Amino acid sequence: MIISNLNDTICAISTPAGTGGIAVVRLSGTLAIDIADKAWQGKRLADCKSHTAHLGNLTDTDGSILDNCVATIYRAPHSFTGDDVVEFSIHGSIWLQRAVVDMLVRRGARIALPGEFTRRAFASGKMDLAQAEAVADIISSTSRAAHRIAVSQMRGHFSTRLVTLREQLLELASLLELELDFSEEDVEFASRNHLLKISSDTLSEVNRLYQSFRQGHAIKEGIPVAIIGKTNAGKSSLLNSIVGDDKAIVSDIHGTTRDIIEDTIELGDYRFRFMDTAGIRHTTDSIEKIGIERSLHAAENAQIIIMVIDTSSATPVNDFNELCSNINTTTLPQLIVVLNKNDKTDSATTDGIMSSIRKKSDEHNAKFTGIQILPLSVITGEGMDIFRKTLENREVVNNSTGENEMLITNARHAEALHHASVNLKAVVDGLSNGLSGDFIAQDLREALSHLAEVTGEISTPDILASIFTRFCIGK
Amino acid sequence: MIISNLNDTICAISTPAGTGGIAVVRLSGTLAIDIADKAWQGKRLADCKSHTAHLGNLTDTDGSILDNCVATIYRAPHSFTGDDVVEFSIHGSIWLQRAVVDMLVRRGARIALPGEFTRRAFASGKMDLAQAEAVADIISSTSRAAHRIAVSQMRGHFSTRLVTLREQLLELASLLELELDFSEEDVEFASRNHLLKISSDTLSEVNRLYQSFRQGHAIKEGIPVAIIGKTNAGKSSLLNSIVGDDKAIVSDIHGTTRDIIEDTIELGDYRFRFMDTAGIRHTTDSIEKIGIERSLHAAENAQIIIMVIDTSSATPVNDFNELCSNINTTTLPQLIVVLNKNDKTDSATTDGIMSSIRKKSDEHNAKFTGIQILPLSVITGEGMDIFRKTLENREVVNNSTGENEMLITNARHAEALHHASVNLKAVVDGLSNGLSGDFIAQDLREALSHLAEVTGEISTPDILASIFTRFCIGK
Repeated sequence: MIISNLNDTICAISTPAGTGGIAVVRLSGTLAIDIADKAWQGKRLADCKSHTAHLGNLTDTDGSILDNCVATIYRAPHSFTGDDVVEFSIHGSIWLQRAVVDMLVRRGARIALPGEFTRRAFASGKMDLAQAEAVADIISSTSRAAHRIAVSQMRGHFSTRLVTLREQLLELASLLELELDFSEEDVEFASRNHLLKISSDTLSEVNRLYQSFRQGHAIKEGIPVAIIGKTNAGKSSLLNSIVGDDKAIVSDIHGTTRDIIEDTIELGDYRFRFMDTAGIRHTTDSIEKIGIERSLHAAENAQIIIMVIDTSSATPVNDFNELCSNINTTTLPQLIVVLNKNDKTDSATTDGIMSSIRKKSDEHNAKFTGIQILPLSVITGEGMDIFRKTLENREVVNNSTGENEMLITNARHAEALHHASVNLKAVVDGLSNGLSGDFIAQDLREALSHLAEVTGEISTPDILASIFTRFCIGK
Repeated sequence: MIISNLNDTICAISTPAGTGGIAVVRLSGTLAIDIADKAWQGKRLADCKSHTAHLGNLTDTDGSILDNCVATIYRAPHSFTGDDVVEFSIHGSIWLQRAVVDMLVRRGARIALPGEFTRRAFASGKMDLAQAEAVADIISSTSRAAHRIAVSQMRGHFSTRLVTLREQLLELASLLELELDFSEEDVEFASRNHLLKISSDTLSEVNRLYQSFRQGHAIKEGIPVAIIGKTNAGKSSLLNSIVGDDKAIVSDIHGTTRDIIEDTIELGDYRFRFMDTAGIRHTTDSIEKIGIERSLHAAENAQIIIMVIDTSSATPVNDFNELCSNINTTTLPQLIVVLNKNDKTDSATTDGIMSSIRKKSDEHNAKFTGIQILPLSVITGEGMDIFRKTLENREVVNNSTGENEMLITNARHAEALHHASVNLKAVVDGLSNGLSGDFIAQDLREALSHLAEVTGEISTPDILASIFTRFCIGK
């Protein structure tokens, strides 16, 4: 593992790789302005105020002019990293970007490791670890909802919430201390009820945050949607129709199960991760049933299941019933039943199927958060608008103002919260069962320490390395 | 053709496409600061001085926070475009970059056309047309030499040279005027010699610049190098060896002639465009001779010909002689004769072949700028260093200081200079042959107008559109 030296002056191309109008090369460290001045023809940068931009020539070590460009100065501690920082806005040729970095290295800078600028911001106390992680999340976010959560986290809303939780636990700790000191004086029972109240409240908030990870993770990585149905029901056409209308396909990931194809699509404020499963044929053959189960298995972790029923088939209601019976989820997904090919059936037939399915759905209600039935035709496009809106119209996560329910998106945070939750449960149980304050205090300390891991008040070089190496270069 | 309105406030992502640490969105126009302030939470930008950077929040039209970022203010006329300019350095997610541009458009900006920022810089007199074109050349340059020429041109060295030429011609014009006014007084002969001197000098400078295009173009696009030789002489191994050592392969273009493969490689300060021709077999068969000619044809426009001779073959000296006899060039390329496979022959044999070829080369001297003979072995690597250095060690074009010989790289400039040259030749001839000043003045005016085209003092919307549409978006 590379331990980066905070005294080095580091540099990197901070803008995306490739050719563009302009590119930004960032230089940060105690020698930043010194190194910049050696390369600069123009006003002496050491004489310039913080937060000012200057036009001049950037020269190579042989004296030749590399570029006519803008240098912006940020003086310590009023910079992103907390160090002196110089940002050169140069012309965006790939050759020039490399040449400028090479030149800065020859003049005494070192090429920055991935995430090293942000790591310095953390080291200098400009942001805590959860905020630093949010910087990477902002850069990789691919939907409005994911972006909003990340911006909220970077602005410190999540950290503030954790501070509140820790303050509650610290209050609890000091009350426990008090109880221990005055244990002779029989004040403990009044205290214990109060302590139980505080610890229970904190536990439920920690649990709520921990449980929000599933939703937060889905928003960050794409909400998992399984499309299931018999062969020829129109599953792939349905997916192609959504994808075709929206050009924001980003990836086609072939799943580990050969039969499942993932398509990631941005719709409205959200990214959806569609899993197009293999068609399920109507069969009583036991081998084929394994195939059915494999496809249904894909639906297990989905948050939305789209069940495509061919209304022109022989047994649409039975198809619905059979598919529902085979679905096995523990996560209460939303079920959208699409009655496809309604162009091939008259409206009376469609209505009949719809009402039969609605009746039948009562038997399966318990498996799902909600069941919606939408007649449509992928071919004619009828009903597609309503279908898209049903997917898109989710309550917008408005974490950027911090007002709405807070979601966590980071597996490291979820793990720490889970550990804290286990400790807090022990605290609550201990208080309920009249355990000695000494034992309870131990669990409390551990809960506090897990919460401190999230914001990085407690961290190890290994944890930091594993966090920052996932950043891009130049940030 | 789209005529861009100079009164619009325009915006675009100026950094390369993709995800990065930061991205820059540029906003330019009379409403730039106004629009920026509507989106800004932080110090009021309208109150900020030019060339200052400010941290704040960028908000969407629904009031939600898009990013915490830096806005840098450049006030008219002290900006790249000459307009008020605001540059937002935002986090570099693709989603956010699009969202910020969308937001600025919703607040009254328009998405910039390719090259529109630079076009405004030209329109506001911040740079002339040759300088504006150099901006695009800098962005697309892929070698130090090409970059240096472009930087020199952007800094106005070429434009200054043109101004000098035009001043000489304007002096000529006023002297001609004088001659016409005083033609009765018999002072014309003294004047004519002086006029002839000025016009001849100007003509030769214009010609020199025009002729530099071949070299300048080669530096910009890659110096054409043809590798020729018999089959199995080791041509492809030689190329692979150069390419393998240097990872800077950029493209593999399959030529229109199926047999010729191009590889573009940066070596030292230059980019080379290698044309690996099909091997030529030793034959007297007339059909096969066509094949030989086709390969040799590729060498016609090369500036360097690498002739690979197998020293272990039966007739190396004859091979050399035959290949040379077949080469037909008008451009006096540099010839590098590579005596390959010297690991298979003893040094006495190699020396013998070398001296025989040297003798024989006298017969072909007139076709080439110079002939170098290098024994080497691609297999053992012996002699490869010298070979690479022979290619690399070209006189470095140091146009960035404007001291060295100036090269032009732009076909539009070459064409204008060619036209100016034709007119100036007519002026010189007219003066020599005692033509009336009226006729001479006409040619002089045309020469002046062609030179004015280069810097854009004379231009049409069509010319401007064809220049700026080749720019990237955001510059």
